[in-house]
Amino acid sequence: MQKPSHELAIRVRYSETDAMGYLHHSNHAIYFEMGRTELFRAQGGNYRRMEELGLFFVVVQLDIKFRLPARYDDELTLLTTLDQTGAVKLVHSYRLMRGQELIAEANTTLACADANGQVQMIPDDLHTQTGQ
Amino acid sequence: MQKPSHELAIRVRYSETDAMGYLHHSNHAIYFEMGRTELFRAQGGNYRRMEELGLFFVVVQLDIKFRLPARYDDELTLLTTLDQTGAVKLVHSYRLMRGQELIAEANTTLACADANGQVQMIPDDLHTQTGQ
Amino acid sequence: MQKPSHELAIRVRYSETDAMGYLHHSNHAIYFEMGRTELFRAQGGNYRRMEELGLFFVVVQLDIKFRLPARYDDELTLLTTLDQTGAVKLVHSYRLMRGQELIAEANTTLACADANGQVQMIPDDLHTQTGQ
Amino acid sequence: MQKPSHELAIRVRYSETDAMGYLHHSNHAIYFEMGRTELFRAQGGNYRRMEELGLFFVVVQLDIKFRLPARYDDELTLLTTLDQTGAVKLVHSYRLMRGQELIAEANTTLACADANGQVQMIPDDLHTQTGQ
Repeated sequence: MQKPSHELAIRVRYSETDAMGYLHHSNHAIYFEMGRTELFRAQGGNYRRMEELGLFFVVVQLDIKFRLPARYDDELTLLTTLDQTGAVKLVHSYRLMRGQELIAEANTTLACADANGQVQMIPDDLHTQTGQ
Repeated sequence: MQKPSHELAIRVRYSETDAMGYLHHSNHAIYFEMGRTELFRAQGGNYRRMEELGLFFVVVQLDIKFRLPARYDDELTLLTTLDQTGAVKLVHSYRLMRGQELIAEANTTLACADANGQVQMIPDDLHTQTGQ
Repeated sequence: MQKPSHELAIRVRYSETDAMGYLHHSNHAIYFEMGRTELFRAQGGNYRRMEELGLFFVVVQLDIKFRLPARYDDELTLLTTLDQTGAVKLVHSYRLMRGQELIAEANTTLACADANGQVQMIPDDLHTQTGQ
Repeated sequence: MQKPSHELAIRVRYSETDAMGYLHHSNHAIYFEMGRTELFRAQGGNYRRMEELGLFFVVVQLDIKFRLPARYDDELTLLTTLDQTGAVKLVHSYRLMRGQELIAEANTTLACADANGQVQMIPDDLHTQTGQ
């Protein structure tokens, strides 16, 4: 079965550049979160349902390899893939591209938690919506 | 009577610069908020008491004049002054300096609101703590 | 003659919210800069030509009135208008909307400067491209 | 020989929180960069000398494990250690603490590059200043 994935166009903002003229490396995590949001939406995910259940997904691990610098006004494409869905965790992978050039690749692990930060089982109906 | 004021040292972060090599102009609002936090703390302000009352201060107006660029690693001094305390609003002014050079000057107006965004009277005991 | 203007759709990122659950007020300046970029592009503006001339537009004044809070995942519309073009300055106005609701309104003044921060005349051909 | 390390106090800014009320996970990379800056300064590092040589350190890898959430106004301590100095690369490790609680731990790899992004040998005198 094909893994759920989503392509998002992102234009580099001037405020996201640094004095070297490059996209600052703290912004990649923000782009990846946008990718997850849009993948979740595309899969029919329902944040309101999550809020009713008092559940959140929190990032517990982030690994990025920066391959090439991006610059102001570059139009990038972010490919987000849901790689694994466990009982309490989700693993996503990301490829940030400028045309055929790989700008960065990354992985994140998210845990399902309640408002007190306690790890919780991912509800079955959300499971389906996050892709399996 | 002297107006409540506070001086805060702020070092420009690399992530706050832009491709021109300057402190990006969206960061000044963040610095001013830090100045208000520290002035509030210095005055004996108690956020926990505000939370118990379910009250927040929201920025309703912001006016900035940018006088000189700042750069990475500059050590700046922010002077924050509480200019006016009304029944529902606070007016602060700011002077962001690098030594004797004026980098920016600004004003903000904050309104006291509840969790639904409805404007509320500033409680008397907070009044005192915000400076009068 | 109608003033040059541009409409831009902006979705609020999770990273742009604050602990109150609202779009943090430092992000509006970033949105306005995005609006100017897109207006400049729509008018046929040419950043490469500006770079060849060693010229930049720097923000010298920013005034914002915050009318309503915006939240995570809100899809906003930013209307950017070039209100005045002087010999060395540009004045833009902004209306940030969520459907028919006004979230914020603002003005900026930009000055044309060289790499040393000295104010310069806006070149005639750029003048045309910025709208007159 | 003891590895060069540095302790930096960092107070969480309101603008760095998100709608969950936590320090947003994109800010950790910014904190780590601040830690590197201060370690470099403490070791006698000289950015001006680097600029004269036309050299930069660019982040090529970032790995973070998020252990506990941090909140607005928390006073954190960042311990930055230079773990390895190679011919062209530096490896740092980080521990972000709130008192005795571990908030996050991380590693970065930086490569020495010229203005065109080509990898360069780290000059001997900089080597010394970065810790060996």
